[in-house]
Amino acid sequence: MNTDTRQSVKRLLLEERGDACLVSTFVNQYYLAGKLFKGYIYLPADGETLFFVQRETYLTDSQVFQIRKPEDIPGILQSLNYPLPKTLFLETGQISHNDFLRLEAAFRPDKTGDATALLRRARMIKSPWEIGQFRISAQKHAEVYSRIPSLFREGMKDIDFQIEIEHLMRRNGSLGIFRTFGDMDIFMGSLLTGSNAAAPAPYDFALGGAGMHPCLPIGCSGETIGEGNAVMVDFAGNFTAYMSDMTRVFAYGKLPDEVQRAHQLSIDMHNRLREEVRPGVSCASVWQWSLAMAEDAGFGGNFMGTSFQAKFVGHGVGLEINEPPVLMARSKDVFRTNMVFAYEPKFVFEGIGAVGNENTFLVTGDGIENMTVFDERIGQLTK
Amino acid sequence: MNTDTRQSVKRLLLEERGDACLVSTFVNQYYLAGKLFKGYIYLPADGETLFFVQRETYLTDSQVFQIRKPEDIPGILQSLNYPLPKTLFLETGQISHNDFLRLEAAFRPDKTGDATALLRRARMIKSPWEIGQFRISAQKHAEVYSRIPSLFREGMKDIDFQIEIEHLMRRNGSLGIFRTFGDMDIFMGSLLTGSNAAAPAPYDFALGGAGMHPCLPIGCSGETIGEGNAVMVDFAGNFTAYMSDMTRVFAYGKLPDEVQRAHQLSIDMHNRLREEVRPGVSCASVWQWSLAMAEDAGFGGNFMGTSFQAKFVGHGVGLEINEPPVLMARSKDVFRTNMVFAYEPKFVFEGIGAVGNENTFLVTGDGIENMTVFDERIGQLTK
Repeated sequence: MNTDTRQSVKRLLLEERGDACLVSTFVNQYYLAGKLFKGYIYLPADGETLFFVQRETYLTDSQVFQIRKPEDIPGILQSLNYPLPKTLFLETGQISHNDFLRLEAAFRPDKTGDATALLRRARMIKSPWEIGQFRISAQKHAEVYSRIPSLFREGMKDIDFQIEIEHLMRRNGSLGIFRTFGDMDIFMGSLLTGSNAAAPAPYDFALGGAGMHPCLPIGCSGETIGEGNAVMVDFAGNFTAYMSDMTRVFAYGKLPDEVQRAHQLSIDMHNRLREEVRPGVSCASVWQWSLAMAEDAGFGGNFMGTSFQAKFVGHGVGLEINEPPVLMARSKDVFRTNMVFAYEPKFVFEGIGAVGNENTFLVTGDGIENMTVFDERIGQLTK
Repeated sequence: MNTDTRQSVKRLLLEERGDACLVSTFVNQYYLAGKLFKGYIYLPADGETLFFVQRETYLTDSQVFQIRKPEDIPGILQSLNYPLPKTLFLETGQISHNDFLRLEAAFRPDKTGDATALLRRARMIKSPWEIGQFRISAQKHAEVYSRIPSLFREGMKDIDFQIEIEHLMRRNGSLGIFRTFGDMDIFMGSLLTGSNAAAPAPYDFALGGAGMHPCLPIGCSGETIGEGNAVMVDFAGNFTAYMSDMTRVFAYGKLPDEVQRAHQLSIDMHNRLREEVRPGVSCASVWQWSLAMAEDAGFGGNFMGTSFQAKFVGHGVGLEINEPPVLMARSKDVFRTNMVFAYEPKFVFEGIGAVGNENTFLVTGDGIENMTVFDERIGQLTK
């Protein structure tokens, strides 16, 4: 089980002068309790963490209380001689406004704070247990990717290839669900080829794709994988709750020289990342030199898209695929030991596809370690 | 494309004396525009609907305006001589409290209303186009279910069988994504067998299952499908944006007589449903007579679970799997023409599994029509 996560949330709570934090979203419950349940975690800055459960006691923790509704919590707190919180942190970036009003009316705090931001800050630094979970995901992720070429058949549509990769992922232990923060929809991951690689999407993923249906405009579009196409595979390594994020590129036939050069540039950028990043280095700097390298090589117009270009080149990963920090120009974050982040410099070529790798890195005491170890060259797809 | 959906929202808005509705969630965007985009739909009670788009113009509608942030909208409204809304309906049951505060500060309305509740009420009554989408989903859903027995192999674990069904669903056009309202996690659907069928989950699905990992406590648990087990398959028919919901039961070997009787009771309950339900009938009444039928037959302790029992026997379906109305004791809804709902009387037997069917029905002018037409008997799984 995860340890110390409650301690790091308490530390941040004290820093921000909060009296307590009330957590009900599944992702933060898992972070704090290692389980999901219908109910609330009450984490005071000072005192023991309490669990208020609306259905079945899944928790073996000693401090578990059965409730019918959240309005029952303040009375129980008072019966335990816990003071009612004057400043209560609620998950205001995740729970609905209606849920917020309900909890505010139940607790009547003088002030509320943003537990979403606080928990996301705490979650940014991973514990040894969490890092171990990433390692399990990353290793299985790489095993699956090594078998991708064996799934290819001539004449396949992008979606056919995608479905076979999904199936292989599941057979190898993928939990299926792909958790994201905010307004994101995706299914298992994305496979982009041909002209579809340049199609923008309404989501904040690095690349888009038109999708198979207007109700899910992301990823495969039903395009046949033709000779001379690049196929970019970017699935979430959701083999544990902690997801590795990894992209590799495959080619059917021979790619044009400039496309191959762009892929090599992505490899070079990863090598530079290994030289540059250590605790204290700014996340914005990675965006800046990545963009400069792309432009210097003449690939500025292909970098992170064509007509629409993403303005980030990496992001934290964890229980959700899009955690802080974001590697973008206006980031104020610096890398810190035990952060886990994905770096994904990608290049899109109209009609051909996208190239460039993505790896998931752990920030160590003096540098970074790649957790998604797998051949970085373009894999060959054959008939 | 969907027509008239904006008209029905306008009607409800006028009824509730709202001046306008601002919509940004994908599910409501799709309902109103047939597309998803990064941005906002501004639907005034009086006047043309406007689209404010933050990235790429996906919409061919004439009233599309490019914005950088939601704070740009009020100025554009004024330049178009639209009055600023005094009562603005926001999606307060879906958007985060932080997003609510941001929109409230941008528009400074005298009052806000709940667009989530309003849109869910509007979405409860389906248009002819939407009904056509359900029919496509339901037909493909039934086609896939007819091939489930061919996927079974002796010695399979529940998860192996689930993965093969997922694969078949995807090969037949399932869009993969399974949209739910509120705090729900699920992947494709649920397959329950043996002792796992009685395991409660933290989600408001009819049945639970322990799941494969603590971060997703729903569905398959890795249990081997043994002789004498019932296997309940309940997947979302997500072949269009409008999902059919259908459950069928398969058996490996022979099920005990009482379990077979409980399955027959579920069929009888569906037959009674066909006799009872027409426009004007209360949704609560269906829960009441369903529970009474279960109890009269001696299956009260198996109905909708064992140690934990769900308190509903059906629910509306649509863009999300859990829409109003809910067929439960305290429902105030009545059936109305063009509602689409799932009815799922299920019985759980410890160590054996769950039995009972689920079908998706359309409420017609004088009764109901089953859209998920497929053999209701227990399907036999053979070596």
